[in-house]
Amino acid sequence: MENVTLHDLKTRLTEVSDLSNVNYLLGWDQSTYMPEGGGDARARQMALLGRLAHERFIDPAIGRLLDSANGDLSEDDAALIRLVRRQYERAIRVPAAFVAEMEAHLAKTYNAWTAARPANDFARMRPLLERTLEFSRRYAAFFPHAAHPIDAFIEEGDYGMTAETVARVFAELRAGLVPLVSAIAAAPPISDQPLRRGYSGDAQLAFGLPIIRAFGYDFARGRQDLTHHPFMTKFSNGDVRITTRFREDDLGDALFSTLHEAGHALYEQGINPAYDGLPLDSGTSNGVHESQSRLWENLVGRSEGFWTHTYPSLQTAFPTQLSDVSLDQFYRAINRVQPSLVRVDADEVTYNLHVMIRFDLEMQLLDGRLSIAD
Amino acid sequence: MENVTLHDLKTRLTEVSDLSNVNYLLGWDQSTYMPEGGGDARARQMALLGRLAHERFIDPAIGRLLDSANGDLSEDDAALIRLVRRQYERAIRVPAAFVAEMEAHLAKTYNAWTAARPANDFARMRPLLERTLEFSRRYAAFFPHAAHPIDAFIEEGDYGMTAETVARVFAELRAGLVPLVSAIAAAPPISDQPLRRGYSGDAQLAFGLPIIRAFGYDFARGRQDLTHHPFMTKFSNGDVRITTRFREDDLGDALFSTLHEAGHALYEQGINPAYDGLPLDSGTSNGVHESQSRLWENLVGRSEGFWTHTYPSLQTAFPTQLSDVSLDQFYRAINRVQPSLVRVDADEVTYNLHVMIRFDLEMQLLDGRLSIAD
Repeated sequence: MENVTLHDLKTRLTEVSDLSNVNYLLGWDQSTYMPEGGGDARARQMALLGRLAHERFIDPAIGRLLDSANGDLSEDDAALIRLVRRQYERAIRVPAAFVAEMEAHLAKTYNAWTAARPANDFARMRPLLERTLEFSRRYAAFFPHAAHPIDAFIEEGDYGMTAETVARVFAELRAGLVPLVSAIAAAPPISDQPLRRGYSGDAQLAFGLPIIRAFGYDFARGRQDLTHHPFMTKFSNGDVRITTRFREDDLGDALFSTLHEAGHALYEQGINPAYDGLPLDSGTSNGVHESQSRLWENLVGRSEGFWTHTYPSLQTAFPTQLSDVSLDQFYRAINRVQPSLVRVDADEVTYNLHVMIRFDLEMQLLDGRLSIAD
Repeated sequence: MENVTLHDLKTRLTEVSDLSNVNYLLGWDQSTYMPEGGGDARARQMALLGRLAHERFIDPAIGRLLDSANGDLSEDDAALIRLVRRQYERAIRVPAAFVAEMEAHLAKTYNAWTAARPANDFARMRPLLERTLEFSRRYAAFFPHAAHPIDAFIEEGDYGMTAETVARVFAELRAGLVPLVSAIAAAPPISDQPLRRGYSGDAQLAFGLPIIRAFGYDFARGRQDLTHHPFMTKFSNGDVRITTRFREDDLGDALFSTLHEAGHALYEQGINPAYDGLPLDSGTSNGVHESQSRLWENLVGRSEGFWTHTYPSLQTAFPTQLSDVSLDQFYRAINRVQPSLVRVDADEVTYNLHVMIRFDLEMQLLDGRLSIAD
């Protein structure tokens, strides 16, 4: 039987998790169905939920319960205590008022972005992004022992990693990838014209759903909606949702983002339901999470074997566009690699380069070598 | 300039309102898009938010702030203090633990209903409904001064009314309505066959939206989604949503429920945006609210003038079904009155009878003269 300390601790942790999960629902609604008039109040509501979750987590009572939760713990409970202790020691460094202020700013920035995006209005976003950077610097300053400000963020998502270890890994990857990308760029170009022939959005979405169902994504515990940027979000062990978008002139956009987000979701849907409401009900790190999304998007979803099986039904779904395109042409088109500023062709190689570039940029932004205006 | 007491009070009230409004979003999501796997955690999350909102509202600090918020108040601020004082005196009678327990039960009941409804399984619902009744009795017992247990609920929604005043109003209405309904039932029956000719759901929904836009419903501050039962819900002054449903064999179902819920929403969208986040940002009573929904549904939406203007476009939208139906036939069909167990023909007359019957049943359930099994 569970002892009183552990029971009390789990009750408190479930409240904290639920407040966070409710906040994720506010964010999901914000980017799927919320009318624009709801934006200001939504920013305020998200800030409130963020602050309440944080306040309840940094309650000294949680620290005391963690101290007394020793003795004869099950393996799961020991893992819970270990994880929560780590998160708690970090969280108590960050004041609740800061969390509320930052959450409100981020929600306000999101609202501005929804208006600035169609107008391509960077000038409107720049002061907000500068403020975001300022929040990031202030956040990093709560962890003064870190060798680089970015460590505060890496540690959050990938426990045990630092700027130094990431830089080492990336240096090794860069040595292999840069010549590889150059060689690809020097080779005869591959045509992705077959992907750009005009595909109805509804038909694209209808094609993707049975594929992720076959991968194992459980629609009784999730659903897919449309957003500007695809993402995976989770409100409980039994409610793990994904989003996608489509472009009629790019067959790959919806399809591979669906496979990608389903990869994240499969990882989350696979977690033991007994962990529902506890911090254990979450992937172990950003790195492992991304490995799962890319496993399904690329290692499966861009493989020859997968398309040998799947291509006939794609041709049936889009006969006018694909009847004259061979499996090999299609397979090459979806694996086309091209250097670009952002990840347009969501390939392993360009992605890894992209992560490296972003990591480098973020480091420079945080330590002041670079500004948003650059 | 606003004084410190008033500012502090409004800050606290906005947090309470936001927690309630977030809970309404959880409910909206539960009945629109939530996958069934999300049900259990959602019940827990709604109970948590309900308890937090209640706890924060019954904080003795709110009572002290209300006591000190005197002096030179604007008309709006005086109205705020008057309303909040009334709500506060009621709320402090109800323990937060009771609110959490009841919210969890109601969300669980909703989840069971979504499974029981398609299976038409009343046996499954009965113990849950008995428990709901028990919660209602316990709730009523927090107001022991009331002449009848139902007064605790009437007072909540229609300040100043009691079972006695409602019974008096209904007695008067009954005297006029019962002979009226009998006379209608004795008259030659009116055919509603034209409404039952098979109407595609999408086309029905597409027809309703421009009508409520013309009524003044602002889609930048709202939206319509599908649910089992239509309702209006509000997450902030700028986000007032409605839901509807459709039946292919009943043209009136979606259309009049859309007009009805838009009536509720117009009332809420018309509130001064300066009240956003405060208890003033809400209709004044259930009775006034229903008067607004029925104004648009019936006095406008079932009137000859409205359909003289609108019927040609309905015929254009559904030519195969309506080209041989005259305006007069259509007008009579949508105004057909028929005695029924539940409100199927959502007409003023049957509605008022229905409310009377429900009021009577609810009184008998609460004072124990009737049980759920009856």
